Order: sequence, then structure tokens, then C-alpha cells
Amino acid sequence: MSERGSDAPLGQYVPVRGVIDLAWGHPDPTLLPVQQLREATHRAMERHGPDILEYGSTAGSPPLIDFICARLAETDARAPSPDQVVITSGASQGLDLVATLLLKPGETVLLDVPTYHLAISIFGDHPVRLQAVPSDADGIVLDDLARVVAALRRDGERPRLLYSIPTFHNPTGRSVSLERRTALVAFAAEQGLLIAEDDTYRELSYDGPPPPSLWALDDAGAVVRIGSFAKSVAPGLRLGYVTATPEIATRMANGGLLDSGGGMNHFAATVLAEYAASGDYLRQVERFRDAYRLQRNRLLQGLATNLPDATCVPPGGGFFVWVQLPPGLDVDALGSIAIEEGMAFLPARRFFLDGGEAPNALRMAFSMYPPEMLEEAIVRLGAAVSQLRG
Amino acid sequence: MSERGSDAPLGQYVPVRGVIDLAWGHPDPTLLPVQQLREATHRAMERHGPDILEYGSTAGSPPLIDFICARLAETDARAPSPDQVVITSGASQGLDLVATLLLKPGETVLLDVPTYHLAISIFGDHPVRLQAVPSDADGIVLDDLARVVAALRRDGERPRLLYSIPTFHNPTGRSVSLERRTALVAFAAEQGLLIAEDDTYRELSYDGPPPPSLWALDDAGAVVRIGSFAKSVAPGLRLGYVTATPEIATRMANGGLLDSGGGMNHFAATVLAEYAASGDYLRQVERFRDAYRLQRNRLLQGLATNLPDATCVPPGGGFFVWVQLPPGLDVDALGSIAIEEGMAFLPARRFFLDGGEAPNALRMAFSMYPPEMLEEAIVRLGAAVSQLRG
Repeated sequence: MSERGSDAPLGQYVPVRGVIDLAWGHPDPTLLPVQQLREATHRAMERHGPDILEYGSTAGSPPLIDFICARLAETDARAPSPDQVVITSGASQGLDLVATLLLKPGETVLLDVPTYHLAISIFGDHPVRLQAVPSDADGIVLDDLARVVAALRRDGERPRLLYSIPTFHNPTGRSVSLERRTALVAFAAEQGLLIAEDDTYRELSYDGPPPPSLWALDDAGAVVRIGSFAKSVAPGLRLGYVTATPEIATRMANGGLLDSGGGMNHFAATVLAEYAASGDYLRQVERFRDAYRLQRNRLLQGLATNLPDATCVPPGGGFFVWVQLPPGLDVDALGSIAIEEGMAFLPARRFFLDGGEAPNALRMAFSMYPPEMLEEAIVRLGAAVSQLRG
Repeated sequence: MSERGSDAPLGQYVPVRGVIDLAWGHPDPTLLPVQQLREATHRAMERHGPDILEYGSTAGSPPLIDFICARLAETDARAPSPDQVVITSGASQGLDLVATLLLKPGETVLLDVPTYHLAISIFGDHPVRLQAVPSDADGIVLDDLARVVAALRRDGERPRLLYSIPTFHNPTGRSVSLERRTALVAFAAEQGLLIAEDDTYRELSYDGPPPPSLWALDDAGAVVRIGSFAKSVAPGLRLGYVTATPEIATRMANGGLLDSGGGMNHFAATVLAEYAASGDYLRQVERFRDAYRLQRNRLLQGLATNLPDATCVPPGGGFFVWVQLPPGLDVDALGSIAIEEGMAFLPARRFFLDGGEAPNALRMAFSMYPPEMLEEAIVRLGAAVSQLRG
């Protein structure tokens, strides 16, 4: 936990002097739309007056729900209707809401590993069992999933939810093929599994449009998609959304949390709707894409130059590159020396369940630094490799 | 659930034409500090720049934590240190966090009834048992609590948490005496019970300072206090806080939800800290107090005039009056006619567990309307009583 109270830093990420820190999937602060959001706040308060400060509509601020429906019509293969959307306080709170309202104690949550390490923490805070499912370069392996589900059922367990990140995956950057998406959705529907699809990175596509979401391919109500504005606008607003069947959306909006407090983050959500309506949202997404594309390219280039024997599948979007180290170059030993050289990454182990077998790999985020800093980070990583190899 | 999407109302409360609706514990929108918060947003964004939009410190925005510590030094018998505070997305989310992180499946949550109906919903969304404990005009009855806890233990149940609202109670408006507070905290410590103290109404005291919180009287770590800015500033900001032992505060800040998303509502929290630092917070609390005191007085006056045979203990703070109806005047029959006459309230039943025995009483909120509207509402209630009595 971070320090608190007087003189504590405002943000979650606290810089370490002399270290270029690629461990954190945070946006480059210099890209964040401070002025535009300040102006949007002004306009939203002029437009709505005290209604922006009262308890908000339980499913979420209606103009933001409208915007989400309109935007997904452009970025996904199917647009939700307003009664299929619930605003959340970021993707994290969407996942927490799924765990609280849709899971029963003792049910099993499947996660295709490697996966977002803090989603493991969120589900782990609930009284469910966690079960890893293997994945390959194209994402979750369906035969393995079927085998794991069958084995669980044989043992009297209740596999209920699959948490997965099919698009611009964290930590690997990969996207699941359309063929496998379709098969996965069909398998979930057939097996009565609910998929919690983490769709956080949809807007950050650098080489063409993103693939359709699992949610868009599903006509059986087997998918709850969790979206976020943390990567497309600003994480500090704490805004995300869920798209689901009207039944699930209603269950969420009628749950105690939203019934008691009104819609999640009503003030910030209504500000964001105003911001989006002005066209600022689209301009910001373009700005992020242009910057992150360059950052990704420079990081990949640096890797090719400085770690020519490491393996990396270039990500088509998102924040992360996943690097498989060559034999003989231990990721933990490398991490210690890299810090001394002035750069940091996360080892693969962090993205597996406790006790799971992790590859000799690492994750680097290219989101938080400009290209020249990323280049310098990789030079330092290269120096750490040379030092480790003696 | 409220309507969604285009043309849906922004707020949770949707006015019903011709009805003065005293069923809702919402603030009077004309009292909300729209302009001051707009200016605070401007200043906070100038001061913090992109730091206000990044992932925030996990326990919550440090300047807001500082303010909470300083303010509780003035309004409570003991001030927390910063490591005892966690910012939440309103009291509702504080309760949800307590349920997720501090309760195990099958444990029993005790609630002294009547109690806040949506807290029942929040706990009910978690896999715990709910058990009512009787209360009298001075709040929870300790002998009854001891009897219920002993009976549960005898039956092999695990009473773990007591949810209680000792100060300006919702729905009854009453406050628990200092003597009973002290005894309650001692009992909880002795029995290994955790008390979730809902302290939402602390700032809204109309006849002198509020009593000390249970949290301030506890030196055994038996109390988690849940505070809110929904009633002292604006509900739409979705901001509240928890004060607890450093161990519990750390458990919350290190949980998956806050580790993944950063501090709750970082943007709004940092704006609120700026607002508070200017003195606007104190001015707003005074403004609310002055307005609500008049509203309370007018409602009580109207009751004495129009329902002289009903019983009501004048509340020293908060939003609510609780009216015990005279024999022969059924609360449900009265409710139906009252709506036709153009006013609404909530029947006592709503504040008890399902199947619990509720008195022939009702709750009215005096928070949302100016005095003359409250007077008119009670005239209409009087007309409904006359009509019901034929």
C-alpha cells in the first residue's frame, strides 16, 4: 500500500529515482486531457446544474450510456442497447460487481494464464476457487479448457465463470483469432459458462480496427463484457462499463450497491459524457493511438537491437509487450540487475496463479514513457543481459 | 431500475407529478454547491495537472484523507491518523467493501431493526446470513443483542458483524446514548464482533454537536466507521470513507479492487479536497444545517397540528422523522390514500428484514423540500388520515 496523508504522493505510481519503470500499465501523464476535461466539467455543470450532484440513475449516467452504445456501434461488431449497459467505477469495479452478484461461494473461476495479475486479486477476494487454463500464442486453448471443465465437473466442482482478455491481452499483447472467439463463445453457451470478457484495450488498436468482442459474437447471453475509460481517456476518472443481457444488467443496477448509492460515479460519468459529446473523446483516442504506436515501435526496435535472441510477438494494440527470454537468461536474475542498471519490468510469474508454472518471460509496458525513454530502457536492459552473461 | 439511455432522467429520483415525495432521503437539489464545486474542479486541475487524472494512491487521494483526519478532530471525540482512513465511493461502497473483505461465507451479520433498508440489500448481495436484533427508543438493546449472539453461537452459527447507525439514525432519527455506546463497544470487543458503524449523518446535527462515534470510543479495533460526503456535500460525487485499524485499512487498500483501479474516485476525491481546503465545506455544512433544521421544525409542527395523535421523537439531526401511527390507522391503507392526496412516505416494513414484524409506523424524509412544501405534504397526509377515518 502506498504512503498516506500529508506529503504522500497523489498517484498510485511513485517514481523511483533513476529507474525507467516499465512494470506499470499506466498512461503517459503528459498525454492526459487535463484542459479538455476541465472545460467539459464546466459545460456539464452549466448544462445539468444540481442534477449532476444528486444521486444518479442507478444503471449509470444516461448520456454516458448513450455514448457507449453509439461508440461500440463504431468499434465493435454489435452495439448494445441502453438496457444492456451499466456504468462502473472502472473495469476493476465491474469485475468486482460480477464476482459479488453473479458468483456463488465455492464456484470455480477459470482464468487463461498468463492473465491480468490484479484480476486474480479481485476474484481472489471473493469466496470462489481459481483454476488456471493453459493458453498458447493465439490465446486460450479450447481443448485444454474443455478438459479442465470436464475434470472439474467430474470432481464435483462447479466451473461457472471464465475470465479472459481476448483483445490486446494483458500481459502478452496478443489477440484471439476470430475462429477461436467464435468457438469459445459457442463452448461457453453449450456448457453454461459465463465469460467475463475484459475489453479494456479495445480503443488502443495500432494496426487497424480491433477484432469483434466475444460479447458481440454471443447470442446466448454467455458473455459479460467489461469495458473501461481508463485507457481511452483517464484512469483517475474511475469509469468503465459492463455490457450484458438486460437481465444481468438489471441485476447489477438493482443490486444493493447501486440502489443505495445511485449510479456509479455520477458526477465524473456525466462530465465524461459531455467531454465525449464534444468530439474530444475521438481526438483523445487518436492522440493516444498515435503516441502509443510510436512507443510500441520504438520498444520493439530496441528489443531487436539489444536482445536479438529474445522472442516477442508484436502486439497490435494495448500497453504491453511480452518477451520470452532465451535459455540461460533467468528472468529473476535479470530483473535484479536491470533495476541496478536503471530499468524495471514484471516477471511472467506475476501473471500466473500462485504455484503455477511460469515461463522464463517478462512483461514491459510501453505506455508511460516517450520513445526516447523506452529506447534508453532497452539499452539498459541490454546492458543487464550483457552483465548477467558475464 | 430506472429507465436508461436517451431521454432517461439523469437522476435516481424521478418526480411523480402532483406528489410531494417524502419517501426519498435525498438532499434538496437547490442547496447543492454547483458553482463552488465547478470552481474547485478548476483549481484542483490547475494545481495537480495530470496527477488528478492518473491512477490515484490506493487508500485514496492524500489531501482528502488529510481533510478527513482534520475534520473528525473537530466533529468526533477522536481523530484518525492517515493510516486509519480509506476513501470509498460513498458509504454504500464502504459497506460493500466491508462485506467483501471482512466477512466469510455463512457468517452472520446482525442488524438492529429498523435499519437502513438498502444496507440490508448490500449485505444481502453477499453470501452471509442476516439476523435482526431488536431496538428501542435509545437504539439497539444490549440484552437482546447478547441473547441473540448467544443463541446463534449455541446453534453453531458465526455472528461476526453488527451493522448499526448510532447517530441520527435512518429511519428513526434517534441517537444512541453515550452510556449505551460505551457498553456496545465493550460488548463487541469482548465477543469478537466487528461493528460496521454507519456514520453518514454526523455533520447534520441541528441542536448541538453530534455524539462521539462508536469508532472514537473503541480502543480494541472492534469498530469500522463508514462516513460519507453524500449528505455533507453532494451524493453525485460518490465519496465516503472508512476509519478503521491500520490493519483493516491496509487490507482494504491492498485488496484487488483498489490495487487494480487505484484509489476510489481519485478525480472527484481530489476535487473535493480542493473544495474543502477553501472553507467551502464548512460553509456548505452550515447551509445544509440551517435549511434542514427549519425543514425538520416545519415538518414536526405540521405533524403536531395535522396528526396530533401520532407519536414522533424529534430527531436531533439527519434526514428523517419516524412516526408511530395511532391504533386503528393502518400504515398501508394510509399510504395508498396519501398518494392520491399527493404525498408519499415509506412504511416501517421497508426497514425490517423480510418477514420481520414491523410496527404501524412510517418514515418521512424532510431533506428534499423547502418548509412550505413539507407543510403542504403534512396537510395532505392529514387529509388522507381524515379520509381513512371516514
